[in-house]
Amino acid sequence: MSSPIRPAQPADVPVILRLIRALADYERLTAEVTANETRLHKSLFPDDGSAPMAHCVIADVDGAPVGFALYFFNYSTFLARPGLYLEDLFVQPEFRGRGLGKALLLHLAKLANQRGCGRMEWAVLDWNQPAIDFYKSLGARRMKEWQVCRLAGEALTQYA
Amino acid sequence: MSSPIRPAQPADVPVILRLIRALADYERLTAEVTANETRLHKSLFPDDGSAPMAHCVIADVDGAPVGFALYFFNYSTFLARPGLYLEDLFVQPEFRGRGLGKALLLHLAKLANQRGCGRMEWAVLDWNQPAIDFYKSLGARRMKEWQVCRLAGEALTQYA
Repeated sequence: MSSPIRPAQPADVPVILRLIRALADYERLTAEVTANETRLHKSLFPDDGSAPMAHCVIADVDGAPVGFALYFFNYSTFLARPGLYLEDLFVQPEFRGRGLGKALLLHLAKLANQRGCGRMEWAVLDWNQPAIDFYKSLGARRMKEWQVCRLAGEALTQYA
Repeated sequence: MSSPIRPAQPADVPVILRLIRALADYERLTAEVTANETRLHKSLFPDDGSAPMAHCVIADVDGAPVGFALYFFNYSTFLARPGLYLEDLFVQPEFRGRGLGKALLLHLAKLANQRGCGRMEWAVLDWNQPAIDFYKSLGARRMKEWQVCRLAGEALTQYA
């Protein structure tokens, strides 16, 4: 089978936003989604010559997008190398079990290797046991000793 | 007092590497540091026209660099906005207690606001209680429910 994974195009923005919202629903975080098509388009496909803030690949079934992975490059000072950070990965429930999630992940691992990344990282919710088990089976390590701190919204504005 | 914080210059690369190693010692992660000056220089000050992989600011005392913060921009799909990710922040022990760490953090919070970032994030080790208490006092939230998964080195190469 040829890979069903392809880079996202500007015309995919509406479906990417729908998939982001579906992922947030699954993560019980719907209230946190304030993204809109205009900002998403500008982030992924800036028309002012600036670099994209993030990149997106799409999984198609019969020519229709049913899953996506969105990533950016982070940086490790300890390695002095870039890393690939997978921000979101989602496949519509009715299209699961076909290996699309695995294909998206593998596509990005290959890209990370090609780009000289020392590592690939992503975050998982601590109650999402199926995902935790799957990631472990790939050889990924959970960095349990590290906790992410976030200064956001009003707290950030006030502090600054 | 004028801000002792300034953007790093190429001539700072050797001292930045020393500070990265000192931070790793403090985090008991010395063995993980494989960074060298050549790669660090290329990452922060690429001379091939590509964008820097990360950015660095320096805290000076009497004209000598004694602390640094290294950051890059990440991306939130839920917000469809960039975020500022603080990868490293360190002040040499003998220069602590003068507010340099706070000045570095505040400098980056202001930058995050200017750049339209929805949030500023960083990671803390779960045993580093002084840091945890300090970050809490700023209004930062620890995202305890999220755990970072990492596929690195051999495991990444093999998988890809």
